[in-house]
Amino acid sequence: MNTSVVVREVGLRDGLQSIATVLPTALKIEWINAAYAAGQREIEVGSFVPAKLLPQLADTAALVAHAKTLPGLIASVLVPNLKGAERAIEVGAHSILIPMSASRAHSAANVRKTPEEMLATIAAIRAARDAVGSKTRIEVGMSTAFGCTLQGDVPEADVIAFLQGALDAGAECVSLADTVGYADPGQVRRLFERALRAVGERLTCAHFHDTRGLALANTLIALDLGIRRFDASTAGIGGCPHAPGASGNAATEDVVFMLTRMGYDTGINLDALLALRKQIAEWLTGEQLGGAIWRAGVPSAGARVDPSMPSFSP
Amino acid sequence: MNTSVVVREVGLRDGLQSIATVLPTALKIEWINAAYAAGQREIEVGSFVPAKLLPQLADTAALVAHAKTLPGLIASVLVPNLKGAERAIEVGAHSILIPMSASRAHSAANVRKTPEEMLATIAAIRAARDAVGSKTRIEVGMSTAFGCTLQGDVPEADVIAFLQGALDAGAECVSLADTVGYADPGQVRRLFERALRAVGERLTCAHFHDTRGLALANTLIALDLGIRRFDASTAGIGGCPHAPGASGNAATEDVVFMLTRMGYDTGINLDALLALRKQIAEWLTGEQLGGAIWRAGVPSAGARVDPSMPSFSP
Repeated sequence: MNTSVVVREVGLRDGLQSIATVLPTALKIEWINAAYAAGQREIEVGSFVPAKLLPQLADTAALVAHAKTLPGLIASVLVPNLKGAERAIEVGAHSILIPMSASRAHSAANVRKTPEEMLATIAAIRAARDAVGSKTRIEVGMSTAFGCTLQGDVPEADVIAFLQGALDAGAECVSLADTVGYADPGQVRRLFERALRAVGERLTCAHFHDTRGLALANTLIALDLGIRRFDASTAGIGGCPHAPGASGNAATEDVVFMLTRMGYDTGINLDALLALRKQIAEWLTGEQLGGAIWRAGVPSAGARVDPSMPSFSP
Repeated sequence: MNTSVVVREVGLRDGLQSIATVLPTALKIEWINAAYAAGQREIEVGSFVPAKLLPQLADTAALVAHAKTLPGLIASVLVPNLKGAERAIEVGAHSILIPMSASRAHSAANVRKTPEEMLATIAAIRAARDAVGSKTRIEVGMSTAFGCTLQGDVPEADVIAFLQGALDAGAECVSLADTVGYADPGQVRRLFERALRAVGERLTCAHFHDTRGLALANTLIALDLGIRRFDASTAGIGGCPHAPGASGNAATEDVVFMLTRMGYDTGINLDALLALRKQIAEWLTGEQLGGAIWRAGVPSAGARVDPSMPSFSP
C-alpha cells in the first residue's frame, strides 16, 4: 500500500481570501517559510484574480517568486480565467488550479460562466501553456461536487461528465471539492468510486470542508479509495463565507495528525505545524479559526490526576 | 445490511458529571422528555456513586423513575461498584454500565481497584442481580481501551483479555471506550476487529470522545465493522477533565447527522435534537460545548449570494 500522502496547503489562498484580515506579504512569506520548514511541499500561495475583487491576494506574483526559491516546493496558484493563467505561466508557477463548478448556479455566481464556457477556458489555457513551452501543471478543481447552497443537489452524472470534459479540454489532473461542506462519507464513497472508474488516476486530490464536522471522516473514505493528496488549511480558515461561524477548510494540522497516527507519511512535522498554527492565530486575532488537535495536543502519557477525584467514567 | 443504529445519550451522565453547572432535576427531566420526543430510546440518566463525590448526579433514582414512565425508553445508569448496582436494580433501571479500565493506572485512579478486582465486582453484581430475579442488563464499558493519559499505551492483549474476563464474570455485553480521545481510525479498526473475533456480537457499543476531532471518523470505522450502537452526548459535553478547552464526547447531533445522511436509521429527528441542543446551551451558559452541525445547520438549497462577490473558490 502507498503510505505517502501529500497535504497541500491552501490556507494562504482559500483561507486568506475568506477573512477580513489582510495579511502583509512579509507575514505570508514567514508562513510559507515555516510551512516549508515543517515539511510541506505543495502550497497554494494565492490566486491571479482582479485585485479589486480580492485585494488580500494581490501579492501572489511575489509569493510565487519567493516559493520558487525553496527547493522541492510546488508553488501552486488558483486562476479562474485565461488572463490569470497567463500571469501564472509568466511567473513560472509550478501548478495552476482552475475552479470549475459542477453546479450551474454556483458556476454563474463564482466564475460568471457556464460549465461549458469553463471547458472552453480550460482548452484556451492549455493551448496558451503549450504555445510557450511552459511546464506548469494544469489541474481542475471540481467545485460543489457534493451539493450546492444555491442549486441544492448536484447530479453525479454532471460531475462525472465535467471531470471527463475538463480532462478532454486539456487538464492534466482533476480533484473533487466539497465547496460548501455538504458531503457525507457515504456520498464521498459513491462519487469518488464513480469518478475513479471514469477518469482513473487522473483524479488526484480531494478538497473537503469541515463546515459540518465531517472533513476527517470524508478524508478517511477518499484515503481508503486510494486518494493520496488532500487540500487543507492551517487553523482551518476559509471556505465558507455563506455560513457565519461555521468551520472552514479541513484543518491541515488535524489531517496531518490523523494520517500520521494511522501510519501514513506526510513528511510534515506536527509539532512544527502546531507552532505555525499558533503564530497564524496571533496574526489573525479576531478571526474565526477551526481545527481540533491544537486544543488538546498530541497524546502523551504521564498526565497528573487528582486521586481524590475519580470520575467513574468509561 | 442492518441500517438501524442506536445512539445512546450519555450527556446527562458523562456530560453533566464533567462540568461545574449543577442542572436541577426538573431541567434534567425536561432534557429526558425532549430527547425522548426527538426519538432517543436509550438514555444514561445518571450514576449511582457517592453523592459527595458527584453531587451533580445525586438525583439519579428520581430520573430512573421518571424515565421508566416513557414507553420503550431504556433507562441506563452507570455503577462503579456492588452498592451502586444494588441501588440500580432496586429502582429497576433497565441497564447498568460498569466502567472497567484496561489501563491499570486509570483503573486505580477511576475506580480505586485493579482490573482483576473489577472482574470480581462484576461477578458479585451478576450474582446480586440473579439472586433477586431482576432483568436489569449488565454491560461493561472498557475504558482507556485506546490509550491512557496516565499510563500511555494500553496493550491490546490486555483489552481483549479484560473484555473476555468481563463476559466470563457475568456481563451480558461489552463496549470499547476511548476515554481520553487517543483513538485514531487505524487503531479503531485493529482493536474492534480483534475484539469482535474474540467476543463476537457481545461487543455491542462504541464510546468515542472528540478530544482530537476524530470521533466521527472513528465512528465510521466501527460502523463499517458492524457496530450499531454508539454513545454520544448532546452538545458534546463531558468526557475530558484533563484537557481544558478540548472537545468532550462525540456530539449526539453530529453522530445523528452523519448517520442520517449516510442512510442509517437512528429514529431520531435531527431538527428536534438541534432544538434540544439549543435549550441545553442556554441551561449551560458559560460551559464549553462541542459539536459542529449546530453552527452551519443541515444542508439546504436556496442560499442567497451577493453576485458582485465571486470568490473564485473550488
